[in-house]
Amino acid sequence: MIYIQRKERFSAAHQLYNPNWSEDKNNEVFGMCANRNFHGHNFTLTVTVKGNINPDTGFVMNLVDLKHIIKENVIEQVDHRNLNIDVPFMKGKFTSTEVLAMEIWKILQPLVAEHGAQLHCVRLDETLNNSVEYFGD
Amino acid sequence: MIYIQRKERFSAAHQLYNPNWSEDKNNEVFGMCANRNFHGHNFTLTVTVKGNINPDTGFVMNLVDLKHIIKENVIEQVDHRNLNIDVPFMKGKFTSTEVLAMEIWKILQPLVAEHGAQLHCVRLDETLNNSVEYFGD
Amino acid sequence: MIYIQRKERFSAAHQLYNPNWSEDKNNEVFGMCANRNFHGHNFTLTVTVKGNINPDTGFVMNLVDLKHIIKENVIEQVDHRNLNIDVPFMKGKFTSTEVLAMEIWKILQPLVAEHGAQLHCVRLDETLNNSVEYFGD
Amino acid sequence: MIYIQRKERFSAAHQLYNPNWSEDKNNEVFGMCANRNFHGHNFTLTVTVKGNINPDTGFVMNLVDLKHIIKENVIEQVDHRNLNIDVPFMKGKFTSTEVLAMEIWKILQPLVAEHGAQLHCVRLDETLNNSVEYFGD
Amino acid sequence: MIYIQRKERFSAAHQLYNPNWSEDKNNEVFGMCANRNFHGHNFTLTVTVKGNINPDTGFVMNLVDLKHIIKENVIEQVDHRNLNIDVPFMKGKFTSTEVLAMEIWKILQPLVAEHGAQLHCVRLDETLNNSVEYFGD
Amino acid sequence: MIYIQRKERFSAAHQLYNPNWSEDKNNEVFGMCANRNFHGHNFTLTVTVKGNINPDTGFVMNLVDLKHIIKENVIEQVDHRNLNIDVPFMKGKFTSTEVLAMEIWKILQPLVAEHGAQLHCVRLDETLNNSVEYFGD
Repeated sequence: MIYIQRKERFSAAHQLYNPNWSEDKNNEVFGMCANRNFHGHNFTLTVTVKGNINPDTGFVMNLVDLKHIIKENVIEQVDHRNLNIDVPFMKGKFTSTEVLAMEIWKILQPLVAEHGAQLHCVRLDETLNNSVEYFGD
Repeated sequence: MIYIQRKERFSAAHQLYNPNWSEDKNNEVFGMCANRNFHGHNFTLTVTVKGNINPDTGFVMNLVDLKHIIKENVIEQVDHRNLNIDVPFMKGKFTSTEVLAMEIWKILQPLVAEHGAQLHCVRLDETLNNSVEYFGD
Repeated sequence: MIYIQRKERFSAAHQLYNPNWSEDKNNEVFGMCANRNFHGHNFTLTVTVKGNINPDTGFVMNLVDLKHIIKENVIEQVDHRNLNIDVPFMKGKFTSTEVLAMEIWKILQPLVAEHGAQLHCVRLDETLNNSVEYFGD
Repeated sequence: MIYIQRKERFSAAHQLYNPNWSEDKNNEVFGMCANRNFHGHNFTLTVTVKGNINPDTGFVMNLVDLKHIIKENVIEQVDHRNLNIDVPFMKGKFTSTEVLAMEIWKILQPLVAEHGAQLHCVRLDETLNNSVEYFGD
Repeated sequence: MIYIQRKERFSAAHQLYNPNWSEDKNNEVFGMCANRNFHGHNFTLTVTVKGNINPDTGFVMNLVDLKHIIKENVIEQVDHRNLNIDVPFMKGKFTSTEVLAMEIWKILQPLVAEHGAQLHCVRLDETLNNSVEYFGD
Repeated sequence: MIYIQRKERFSAAHQLYNPNWSEDKNNEVFGMCANRNFHGHNFTLTVTVKGNINPDTGFVMNLVDLKHIIKENVIEQVDHRNLNIDVPFMKGKFTSTEVLAMEIWKILQPLVAEHGAQLHCVRLDETLNNSVEYFGD
């Protein structure tokens, strides 16, 4: 069992806001992140896949395939988008980095499995100092 | 003459859009950056100041003072904001990194001069791969 | 269960020295790190916390709260300090990165628990190439 | 139990090629990596070792010793080499990052054990975006 | 006048070797870089362009255009190639980072000029610690 | 004329303190940096040298020679040292990054000239966010 990682990047706008709360309560909990006009980030998505070495290639899985899976199924949906408005798989959900990582897991898990490997971790870096990791359970 | 640099970071939303153009023309020129619902970035602002060494401190200018000047006059206005809507000094201007760097120069130049030093360069990194430098002329 | 990370930075002086050993033995084992006049580093502290998503916020724990916990209880005690002299929680201990990480764990573990989450890992990067991780057991 | 990490870097040429396959099949699977004239990378090798704190030093293991073990047994064999031609321990093997990490594990595991610690992870970063981790089983 | 930068990356093999010298002289001057079987690097190419702001776009030059110019005219010729064998514009030249930067300048200078801007600097980072900058004269 | 850069790193302790001032005045001006027990940093030293290409090597100057000059004449004097106590060339001087960069320039300038090249810039990064550049006049 060996682990391979691929990083991709995207730039998106979002806001953290609970529609069941008052404006004041939102500002108290989410602070500047509740700005109704949105703010944004350069996110770095790191996908870790595990599996055994294929004796014909020396690969767990071709990283070029993994790159295409991530780009076509995640990056194209979120890059240069507004996570609260433009992204179908985030509709009606909090656009916290935690929830975004969990939703990306749901998209990637079956696609990686089709290539005979297992999704191990979805990591999102939101800023230089803040990040999230999800291992699927 | 010696040069000192201070980096600060902010996260903001923006969109690139020319209101005198059609939607199609905007999409053609600005591509995904024209998304009407905004996207965003983690910007890194690097401010370079030049001057002579103060013989009492060994400093061109106290970097703590420079940090406060940048934070109070720039970062507080742009961090977790929408550059197209929330930022008075960008009103009616393109929110390209170029224009943003030039406007930040106008704010910082006299404030640095008050401390007996000269503003040399305003640099903005918008993504890992894209950046801008402005030297004031 | 999802994991969130927050990075903070501090700059400190220290020396590695065993007072039960001769000067020669200290120099032999600790090399340049035994310099009696101290040397120093920019340390990066990465704190990982795990927990379940709060359905009202989409957060494991508010990263702003985590930032304040780390800054008030760790960074303020170690930043611009001498780890061998100025830091009460390191008194009489080796100031190796390993021991420092373990002592930071003891400080942060109950404070994170008060916020309904669990401390998962304390990581310290001492230089570009040297780091330590502690998981609490 | 605490974990310490040491990073070392090397620059090497390689090619991904299965000699049992046709040129076309190699190009189809390995793409540009199959270039018969080789390409190359700056690899970053991160070695994680775990163990208990030595009460005389505050160390799991002296990082200077770990540095020397890695340099003498791995870096000197691969740095500024061609992984397909010049490196005895890679002879007849695929020079994928996965296989390289597994072979480096075999070299380092007994050497770390001689110092009373346990090898935990061998990580190789091949590019900014691609990396591999091996935990020995 | 404002400066914009775009970074692109490529991975290539090369060797430093003067065919007019003996093997011994090559090894003495170029050390490990003279390895006849090649070694390689992940190069980072940073291109700086200067010009005035276009009042219709807020841009010096569209960074998407600059990206395409760099990718199509430089990256596609050098990525996953052997700089000594595969790259027409390096034929018969030393593949030092200096010479490579100067040759890339010759390619990019007229192409940037066609877009109404001026090439200011070609920078190549060969490793974490070694880099070159060329300003065209 | 082309520019080459070499980075080296060192870890040192220091304090900022003007002996002609009271303790209060020192604390007011230098803040935490005046801590009498010292603090420290991982400094990154970037040395830029300019010159013409040697037609026999494709080099301005061999970067291996530049590395040795920097290591033997600067790094060995400052690494794991206390800049206020242990470093002869800083005796009686402020150990600000500015002054340190200027003193390193004085050491390196004639040594680079002996190799037929010119020292162009000495840059010191003291933290992730603070740095200094000196061009010799």
